[in-house]
Amino acid sequence: MEVTKVLHMNGGIRNSSYAKNSLLQQKVILMTKSITNKVISTLYNNLSPGETIRIADLGCSSGPNTFLTISQLIQTIHEECKSNSQQQSPEIHVFLNDLPSNDFNSIFRSLPTFYEDLRKQNMGGDGLFVTGVAGSFYTRLFPSKTLHFVHSSYSLHWLSQVPDGIESNKGNIYVASTSPPSVVKAYYEQYERDFVNFLKYRSKELADGGCMILTILGKKNEDRFSKGACYLLEPMARALRELVVEGSIEEEKVYTFNIPAYYPSLREVMYIVDKEGSFTIDILKTCELHKDDFDENMAQCVRAFTEPLLVSHFGDNEILIDQVFHKCREIYVNFMTIEKTTFTNVIVSLIKRN
Amino acid sequence: MEVTKVLHMNGGIRNSSYAKNSLLQQKVILMTKSITNKVISTLYNNLSPGETIRIADLGCSSGPNTFLTISQLIQTIHEECKSNSQQQSPEIHVFLNDLPSNDFNSIFRSLPTFYEDLRKQNMGGDGLFVTGVAGSFYTRLFPSKTLHFVHSSYSLHWLSQVPDGIESNKGNIYVASTSPPSVVKAYYEQYERDFVNFLKYRSKELADGGCMILTILGKKNEDRFSKGACYLLEPMARALRELVVEGSIEEEKVYTFNIPAYYPSLREVMYIVDKEGSFTIDILKTCELHKDDFDENMAQCVRAFTEPLLVSHFGDNEILIDQVFHKCREIYVNFMTIEKTTFTNVIVSLIKRN
Repeated sequence: MEVTKVLHMNGGIRNSSYAKNSLLQQKVILMTKSITNKVISTLYNNLSPGETIRIADLGCSSGPNTFLTISQLIQTIHEECKSNSQQQSPEIHVFLNDLPSNDFNSIFRSLPTFYEDLRKQNMGGDGLFVTGVAGSFYTRLFPSKTLHFVHSSYSLHWLSQVPDGIESNKGNIYVASTSPPSVVKAYYEQYERDFVNFLKYRSKELADGGCMILTILGKKNEDRFSKGACYLLEPMARALRELVVEGSIEEEKVYTFNIPAYYPSLREVMYIVDKEGSFTIDILKTCELHKDDFDENMAQCVRAFTEPLLVSHFGDNEILIDQVFHKCREIYVNFMTIEKTTFTNVIVSLIKRN
Repeated sequence: MEVTKVLHMNGGIRNSSYAKNSLLQQKVILMTKSITNKVISTLYNNLSPGETIRIADLGCSSGPNTFLTISQLIQTIHEECKSNSQQQSPEIHVFLNDLPSNDFNSIFRSLPTFYEDLRKQNMGGDGLFVTGVAGSFYTRLFPSKTLHFVHSSYSLHWLSQVPDGIESNKGNIYVASTSPPSVVKAYYEQYERDFVNFLKYRSKELADGGCMILTILGKKNEDRFSKGACYLLEPMARALRELVVEGSIEEEKVYTFNIPAYYPSLREVMYIVDKEGSFTIDILKTCELHKDDFDENMAQCVRAFTEPLLVSHFGDNEILIDQVFHKCREIYVNFMTIEKTTFTNVIVSLIKRN
C-alpha cells in the first residue's frame, strides 16, 4: 500500500465524512489555544514592519477543523494587533497542507464563505491569503526559510508507510498486546525515522526563530500497549477477526492488513527531538481527553479516517465496509460501558535552533 | 449568475473535459516560449544568492496545460542555471491559481508523477514547490511583494461578471453584429474595469522589478464584431436559437443568457495598461493561430469551457446540453468549410514600475 496515495480523511459531507466526525480533533485544537497564543504573540512582536507572517498547517484535512485552526490563529494575531495599536496589521500567508488525496476542492470551495465570515467579525480577511500544498510532510514541502510558524494537530501519528518486517503481526492491525516484540520494534523504528525526517525538513523550511506546535495522539506511558491508543483501533481488529470467522473475509487478507500509525509517548517525542537536534523544546506536556468530554459516534469517527485504507486493502465493497463498521460500533458501545476511556495527547512547542 | 462560483473548465478526464480539449491553449503556450525565456533569464540573473524564485500561473485550469506551463518555466530556469555554472540552482515556488470551482484535486493528484518526470529528465524537482491558490484574479491573491513573475494564458478574456445593463442583447450570447451599441459599451466597460483591477492588484503582489506575461484571446482590429472572437461563440448562439424554434428551450431563457467574456484588441490592452499606470510595456504584439494549425473538435473544445455556464443557467439537463453541442458541432463544420478561421492572440510582457 502506498500510504501517500491512499491515506486521507473521508471527503465530502456525508455522514461518514471526516467533516462530520471530527469533534475529538476539534477539542484538541481548542485545548492548545493558550500555547498557540503565546507563540503567535512572540512571533508577531518579532516581525519587521510590513513583513508577511507565513504559517503552515500540516495535515489540515478537510472540514470544519481545517478552518477552525486558521480562525484561531488569525484571531490571536488580530488580538495582538489591537493591543499594540502602533503596528499595522500584518498580512498573513497560510499554507494548508495534506496528502494529494485530501479533498482540497472542498476546502477551496468553502474559502469565499470563510473570508466573508472573517470580514463580518471584523477580523480582516483582506490581508489573509490561504493556499493549498499537497504532499507528504515527511518530504520537503516549502522553499528554505519560508515559514514563521508550523502547526500540526492529530496528523503526526500517521506513518509514511506500514513498517517493513511485520508479517508476524497476524490478526492484529496495529501494535496490540499479542504482537511479537519485533513488530513493536518495527513500528517504533518507522516512527522515529519519519519523525526525524519531519523535524529535519521543517528546520530547513522555517525562518530563523521560527517555531512549531505539534499535537500528537499518543500514549500515556512507556507501556507500548497502553490503552488510549488501542482504544481507537482494537475494535476494528476484532471486527475483522469476527468477519473472518463468519467467512466474509479471507484470513490471509486480514493477516496482511496493518494501519500505518504510531502513538508515541511524551518520552519518545522528547528523545527523538533531542536526537535530531534542530529544535529546542519550549513546552512538552501530555493532556488527556476523556470519552465523556465529547459526544461522538466512535465508529463513524474511526470510519472517517480509516475507510480509505480499508477500501484500498479489501476492495471497494460497500457492503463489507458497512459490516466492518457496524461491528465496530457494537464493540465500541460495549467497550465504553466497561472501561473508562481516555485519549492521551502529546503537545510539544519547538523553537528552531539558530 | 455568480461567475466566481460557476465558471470553470470541465474537470476530470472525460471526452468533454478541458484536459482532453485544450490543444489550442497548448499551441498558445508554446507560441510565447521565446518571450517567456527572455523574461525568466533576466529575472534569474537579478536574483540574490539563495533567493527563492516565486512564480504564479493565473487561470491555470486543470489538465496537461497546467503542467506544460510550469515545465516550460522550469526548463528555462534550468537552462539558465546550466549556462551560468557559478550560481546554485534557485528554489522555485510555483503558485497555481484558478477559481475555487476549478478541479485542484486533479492537479494535486498528478503532482507526484510530475515531480518524478522532472527528476527523470534531470530538471530537479527537489527544489520545486507547487501550491494551489483558489480565488478570482480580479481580487487580491497574494501578500504584498511576494511574486517575481506572473504568467497568465487564455484566462484574461473571462470577465468577473456578466456586464450589467445588457437586457437588450436578446438572442445573442455575446457581442454580436446584431447587438445594440449599449451592449458593446457595457461589455467593453466591464472588461476595462476588470483588467484595471487585475493590473492594480498584481502590481501590489509583485516584488520590485517583477514582471508579467499575459496571453489574451483577442480580436484582430477595432471592429468590435471582428471574426476571430465570434467564431468561438456564434455557433452556440445559433444552436440555442434553433432550440428555441424547435421548442426545446424557452425564448426568455436564451434572452437572459450571456457569456462573461470579452476579447480585446491590442489597442484596448495598450490603452488600459497605460491608463492604469503601474506597468511599463516591454513587448506588445498580436499573433494569429489558424484553425488548420491544430486539429481539434471545436464543439468539444467550446464545451470544455462553457458547459458549467450552460448548466448553471439552463439547469443540469444532460439531454439538452448534448443537443446544444450536437448542433454546435454541425454549425462549426459548416463554418469551417466556408470561412478561413483565425484566432487572434494579444501577447503582452509587462514590467512593474518602481
